Amino acid sequence: MAVDVSSLSERSVEMLMTSDHTSVVSMNLFVALLCACILLGHLLEESRWMNESITALAIGLCTGVIILLTTGGKSSHLLVFSEDLFFIYLLPPIIFNAGFQVKKKQFFRNFMTIMTFGAVGTLISFAIISLGAMHFFHKFNIGSLKIGDYLALGAIFSATDSVCTLQVLNQDETPLLYSLVFGEGVVNDATSVVLFNAIQSFDLSHINTSTALQFIGNFLYLFAASTILGVVAGLLSAYVIKKLYFGRHSTDREVALMILMAYLSYILSELFYLSAILTVFFCGIVMSHYTWHNVTESSRVTTKHTFATLSFVAEIFIFLYVGMDALDIEKWRFVSDSPGKSIAVSSILLALVLVGRAAFVFPLSFLTNLTKKSPSDKISLKQQVTIWWAGLMRGSVSMALAYNQFTRSGHTDLRANAIMITSTITVVLFSTVVFGLMTKPLVRILLPSSKHIGSMISSEPSSPKSITVPLLSNGQDSEVWIEIGFSVHLFIHSRIWGVVTAFYTR
Amino acid sequence: MAVDVSSLSERSVEMLMTSDHTSVVSMNLFVALLCACILLGHLLEESRWMNESITALAIGLCTGVIILLTTGGKSSHLLVFSEDLFFIYLLPPIIFNAGFQVKKKQFFRNFMTIMTFGAVGTLISFAIISLGAMHFFHKFNIGSLKIGDYLALGAIFSATDSVCTLQVLNQDETPLLYSLVFGEGVVNDATSVVLFNAIQSFDLSHINTSTALQFIGNFLYLFAASTILGVVAGLLSAYVIKKLYFGRHSTDREVALMILMAYLSYILSELFYLSAILTVFFCGIVMSHYTWHNVTESSRVTTKHTFATLSFVAEIFIFLYVGMDALDIEKWRFVSDSPGKSIAVSSILLALVLVGRAAFVFPLSFLTNLTKKSPSDKISLKQQVTIWWAGLMRGSVSMALAYNQFTRSGHTDLRANAIMITSTITVVLFSTVVFGLMTKPLVRILLPSSKHIGSMISSEPSSPKSITVPLLSNGQDSEVWIEIGFSVHLFIHSRIWGVVTAFYTR
Repeated sequence: MAVDVSSLSERSVEMLMTSDHTSVVSMNLFVALLCACILLGHLLEESRWMNESITALAIGLCTGVIILLTTGGKSSHLLVFSEDLFFIYLLPPIIFNAGFQVKKKQFFRNFMTIMTFGAVGTLISFAIISLGAMHFFHKFNIGSLKIGDYLALGAIFSATDSVCTLQVLNQDETPLLYSLVFGEGVVNDATSVVLFNAIQSFDLSHINTSTALQFIGNFLYLFAASTILGVVAGLLSAYVIKKLYFGRHSTDREVALMILMAYLSYILSELFYLSAILTVFFCGIVMSHYTWHNVTESSRVTTKHTFATLSFVAEIFIFLYVGMDALDIEKWRFVSDSPGKSIAVSSILLALVLVGRAAFVFPLSFLTNLTKKSPSDKISLKQQVTIWWAGLMRGSVSMALAYNQFTRSGHTDLRANAIMITSTITVVLFSTVVFGLMTKPLVRILLPSSKHIGSMISSEPSSPKSITVPLLSNGQDSEVWIEIGFSVHLFIHSRIWGVVTAFYTR
Repeated sequence: MAVDVSSLSERSVEMLMTSDHTSVVSMNLFVALLCACILLGHLLEESRWMNESITALAIGLCTGVIILLTTGGKSSHLLVFSEDLFFIYLLPPIIFNAGFQVKKKQFFRNFMTIMTFGAVGTLISFAIISLGAMHFFHKFNIGSLKIGDYLALGAIFSATDSVCTLQVLNQDETPLLYSLVFGEGVVNDATSVVLFNAIQSFDLSHINTSTALQFIGNFLYLFAASTILGVVAGLLSAYVIKKLYFGRHSTDREVALMILMAYLSYILSELFYLSAILTVFFCGIVMSHYTWHNVTESSRVTTKHTFATLSFVAEIFIFLYVGMDALDIEKWRFVSDSPGKSIAVSSILLALVLVGRAAFVFPLSFLTNLTKKSPSDKISLKQQVTIWWAGLMRGSVSMALAYNQFTRSGHTDLRANAIMITSTITVVLFSTVVFGLMTKPLVRILLPSSKHIGSMISSEPSSPKSITVPLLSNGQDSEVWIEIGFSVHLFIHSRIWGVVTAFYTR
């Protein structure tokens, strides 16, 4: 076993990390572009339309054009988009930070609504997009797509990217809306990845009731086991740091241990074929709720900002990467024969995204409102439109899943697969740029709070997500802090919904 | 150009980052081992003998044995030691942090002494080890070593690893000694890497006066250009962060920009074939002196601890890696025919290390003492012995350089090369473990300060390096803070020694 790995990493280390001068050149360019994105994002902060994602995407596209011109149309990217690089290195800090910075009080107060939107809603959206694609794509002659491909398309286009909207919403003014959009975004990511993995690992050639039940059982098992693993990893880190009294001498050891244990939970989850994204999200929540209270003051400041910075850089990295990769010639070759067909496919997918989301946001909001008594807890129509809009953007998760399904190690050989990849790129670019640019004005029209406009002019909302979440909410509920030993006992012996209830009722 | 890179990274990404289950297993094991090292290091902190490096080395060796047994003697490591991984990802944070955390007042007060020891001393040690190896190795029949190999051996075994000693020395009690050992360690690392690169890039088959002069000129150019690049990168980051007033909204952007610009200076230096290690060291110094004063309070806490944590984890990673790789079967195959010869070679190298260091520490201390007037500034004999001892350990830089010189992508085919690799491993392990274990007792005998022993019992000194440097020294010289605009002008227009003098006289 170790033999394979060693020879494997030997070859790849040799290739990837060779002191080859060209690879040093591209690393330089990439790091310099990251710096440029941060600088430009900062300078454009006052702008009414822009945000960091669009800036990075634009810089990526421009660089792609320049590389395309200098190489004589041969290549447009410095690095090939790899879903493994994405899932192993870039996604964990983003999702962990989301869990770490979430205002837990709001999150767990609206837990049921969030889960309904994130899990049930994503399933509805998935069903509509899959069925819609099956229905419409038959009419085009775009090559052979299997049933697994259609289901994968549903999962791919159910993964939303709500970063743009979160940058505009104000957590203090519209706490309900913010926590709904934020929470739904994370649960939605996890749900689509779990769905996608479930689809890939199942033999879908003959579906019957038993396989369908097995599929649902598998889905629930993944959900529960992943959450438990994340919670256990978080509690273990809290226990170890408290018991061994790490902060006595060293802030660095505490910080290192937190980072390493969070990452360990992620790859352990990968090891057991669970949903690593859910694991690390819950690990982040538990760490910010327990571990964070057991470390020194400077560790608290450090971890809070380190996690936010890592997430911030990873996000920019992804958008830069996507922007550069969008112009890859190889993928567009198949499309150039029939541009009309490609535009049609992209338009249909975009329409399905719009319909698929509307099909669950408004009905589920109606159902949720029935369960609420106080009018302030109900979701107003304007808020429903905002929620609907917030999930229209498609981002890096969709890209990564599409690459995973439709390419073999970065290459697209089949005509149908190439069209699916370019359509995904088109939908991601269009939704991020067009819908993204419209978000700020739209939210301003829908939620015209005077304070909100004021803070918008002072450009506060367009700062990165981690800033929009000004402080960890831990300070708020420190009174309900429960002795960790008891909690460990409580949590390990309770099931997934037990955990949720314990959080929810606190 | 970009085409090569893309196809290159495509293949390697495919191999390295494949979702292959075995690679996930080894990643899990590696991260878990890192956690174990931190935990054990913390628990063994009170111990009289141990330190974190030795703990990591021991855990690495134990894991190597276990893997060796489970794979039936086929392999001992999870990852193959790659000098590129080391130089591109692990070394930069360690060296940057060294520059960032150094007490600049002490460092620049003793600048000439440090440079004398670090640069001239390393050259003396290099000459003695190279000549000694040439003299003695001819007698053994160990295969063909060229003159370049002998010179490389000199550079390899001139690179010291003073981490063990620094963990024991107390910066507040013996500031002179601490800054000498610390500063010499960094300059020594840089000098040996610069020397090594100069040797590799020169045609050494026929040496005459002109090539020797060219060699020296090249060495000085590398030294000066690398330093200037680091200083400029640091000043640029300070200027950008101050002018654009980043902290206004976002701590994370400041932190991200500092990390990215520091890394950019490192790879830019690689790009121009300079000494990246020197560049990033001076970038760290300038960043802690200028940039650090222009960021928000939380950015200061965050950067200080983040850099220390990164450096800490990278150090443990390296020792774990070296420990695991030490048992690699392939390398020991050649040696098993003639164990006596291998022991003889290792012993000679170890003796040359001892002699080579003695040959410059005592004479140079004598010369330095001649220039000092106050007795407190002079280096006492006991301190000289401590300095000599502090540089006897050989560590990861030696390993990385040896792999670079004597292997082709992790494999050792030639008999002579295999013996050189195993001898390097032997010297590194022996010096780190045996000399490392003796450091604490030795320093206690040589420098028996009552307060020092007191703090030693409370286990303060054995905390990691970053803790032994309790706070950045910036607070001390904030009064002499000079307007950044002027400084930029001053620095860019002055030459390397001008920069040094500006620092020194401040």
